[in-house]
Amino acid sequence: MKATILYGPRDVRFEEREDPKITKSTDAIISMVATCVCGSDLWSYRGISPITQPTPFGHEYCGIVEEIGKEVRNIRPGQFVVGSFAISDNTCVICQNGYQSSCVQREFVSGAQATFLRVPLADGTLVKTDDLPPEDLIPSLLATSDVLGTGWFAADAANVKPGKTVLVVGDGAVGLLGVLSAKQMGAERIIAMSRQSTRQKLAREFGATDIVPERGDEGVERIKELTKGIGADSVLECVGTQEAMMQAINSTRPGGYIGYVGVPHDVALDGEHLFYSHVHLHGGPAPVRRYLPHLIKLVLDGKIHPGRVFDLTLPMEQVAEGYRAMDERRAIKALLRPSAKAQRGGPDVA
Amino acid sequence: MKATILYGPRDVRFEEREDPKITKSTDAIISMVATCVCGSDLWSYRGISPITQPTPFGHEYCGIVEEIGKEVRNIRPGQFVVGSFAISDNTCVICQNGYQSSCVQREFVSGAQATFLRVPLADGTLVKTDDLPPEDLIPSLLATSDVLGTGWFAADAANVKPGKTVLVVGDGAVGLLGVLSAKQMGAERIIAMSRQSTRQKLAREFGATDIVPERGDEGVERIKELTKGIGADSVLECVGTQEAMMQAINSTRPGGYIGYVGVPHDVALDGEHLFYSHVHLHGGPAPVRRYLPHLIKLVLDGKIHPGRVFDLTLPMEQVAEGYRAMDERRAIKALLRPSAKAQRGGPDVA
Repeated sequence: MKATILYGPRDVRFEEREDPKITKSTDAIISMVATCVCGSDLWSYRGISPITQPTPFGHEYCGIVEEIGKEVRNIRPGQFVVGSFAISDNTCVICQNGYQSSCVQREFVSGAQATFLRVPLADGTLVKTDDLPPEDLIPSLLATSDVLGTGWFAADAANVKPGKTVLVVGDGAVGLLGVLSAKQMGAERIIAMSRQSTRQKLAREFGATDIVPERGDEGVERIKELTKGIGADSVLECVGTQEAMMQAINSTRPGGYIGYVGVPHDVALDGEHLFYSHVHLHGGPAPVRRYLPHLIKLVLDGKIHPGRVFDLTLPMEQVAEGYRAMDERRAIKALLRPSAKAQRGGPDVA
Repeated sequence: MKATILYGPRDVRFEEREDPKITKSTDAIISMVATCVCGSDLWSYRGISPITQPTPFGHEYCGIVEEIGKEVRNIRPGQFVVGSFAISDNTCVICQNGYQSSCVQREFVSGAQATFLRVPLADGTLVKTDDLPPEDLIPSLLATSDVLGTGWFAADAANVKPGKTVLVVGDGAVGLLGVLSAKQMGAERIIAMSRQSTRQKLAREFGATDIVPERGDEGVERIKELTKGIGADSVLECVGTQEAMMQAINSTRPGGYIGYVGVPHDVALDGEHLFYSHVHLHGGPAPVRRYLPHLIKLVLDGKIHPGRVFDLTLPMEQVAEGYRAMDERRAIKALLRPSAKAQRGGPDVA
């Protein structure tokens, strides 16, 4: 098969790798229908989170089941499935509490930007559709795997409810789908922080009622102006930097909620500042598996169109261009498709 | 009148001060029935939070209304009242959301360890009882003013629910009343961290099912052992140090809740560690006013006896001994009573 390997900063290669095999009786092998590049991949691409060896990349995926281990019960070959970026058994006490991304058997998926993928704990991780979905829904179904699931968790962690005022910090794909999620959850007012016109436009299409281009103290001041000096009820922090986190904390009303889903990089929170801010803080790797059945249904019913965040679609062998376009913010998010029905053991048809 | 003034580290004096007067039409003057020394007073007493000038101390109080401003409607002279340590109008949008301790008009009470006290925004801050309460309930009614209200908020912020496993970090009066609060909220298992036998005993009386004397990594390990390796559902952090906060974060199950009410001193939280811990974090100055009517009713109905945390009762002029006893951990909490019915303008009868 062919797979995406990161060799070092800005060195992405798409090359021949050994086919994945069933190694445990709870595994499944899927052939990729669509995968994509994640904003979090860029931390390593840019060398900020350095890698120590050539590493298979990608953790967002949907595909067709090719093969299953002996103990797999919930899916069978030929079915279309979406999975979370976090492997989970979906049965342990942590999973039962809805935190599958901290499952006692958790592993993080890596290597999904490839023509085939081995998925451990397939019964707990993958969600099938009843039928093979129509081609035009593939981007939106792929989005549920991480970027929508993560935006949704941000909104849920931020306690978004009907009638509330919501602020979204970050105009990447997760932030934009945070806007969509808040809209679905009934938010009355959704303020998106963005200074780029394409993203502002998409934010409005997803349900943003206000756009704030200012950042830092100026940004906080604008939010306070828009909320009668009080702050927003719910704030989604979808970046992971100190600036974004402070933006979130200082823009939330006392007693309000912050959902943070950007993996924090060099973020330190001052205990006393947080104490007097009086906010609720919750976040972490999104338990996408909890939301997948609901999100897949919303997509299949035509209620939401999260696939709109993919403004660049490339054949998988051009994955390096996908990274480049996102790194340079020329694209919001790059979708990757195998060029033709891939065959295990054979050359990928480009 | 007589009042407690902190002059500097370990220099507490009880001395003649000018009588408080109504300065705004929303003020009330109360004559003190009981007040006490708070664990948080010790930060200044020990010189850790230095004061810059002689400062009236005390913020926990119950008393008899002596005089009210022209606009005060909810209380009248002669009534018994309890108030929160935070002044609030109880009408602004933040108060309406239940965060009276971040009211837009908030002030923190200071100077309650005195024979008289001016309370601003009396209608929003004070809660009256229908009748003058019996003498034996005074300590428990006083406790609602802060130490119980704060322990209750910790339990509420930590989402304590029937059947849950709760951990309380800190065996000061707030922590002990956190145990009582968790018990009232239906927790099935309540683990109290304490290494002092008097406090362990009171924790058990209040409802603790397990006592853990270990701290730090060893303490975390013990909690994990007691919770099948998963961590507690709800953790009350009632100290305010880095060690206590890390103890709390590392002892909570993924998806669990931390309520933190100890004012953080030099606490810094690592964003990435917090992210992967997957906890909910909420705290701040307790919105005692939200809980006061309910807590006062529980006391008057004889359902709870939070006044048991007062293991030292002193005439108010011996306030310095109250600070000393708490500083040396000889007492859990010191109650102060005026020696006789105090008179404004006259000498206090000792």
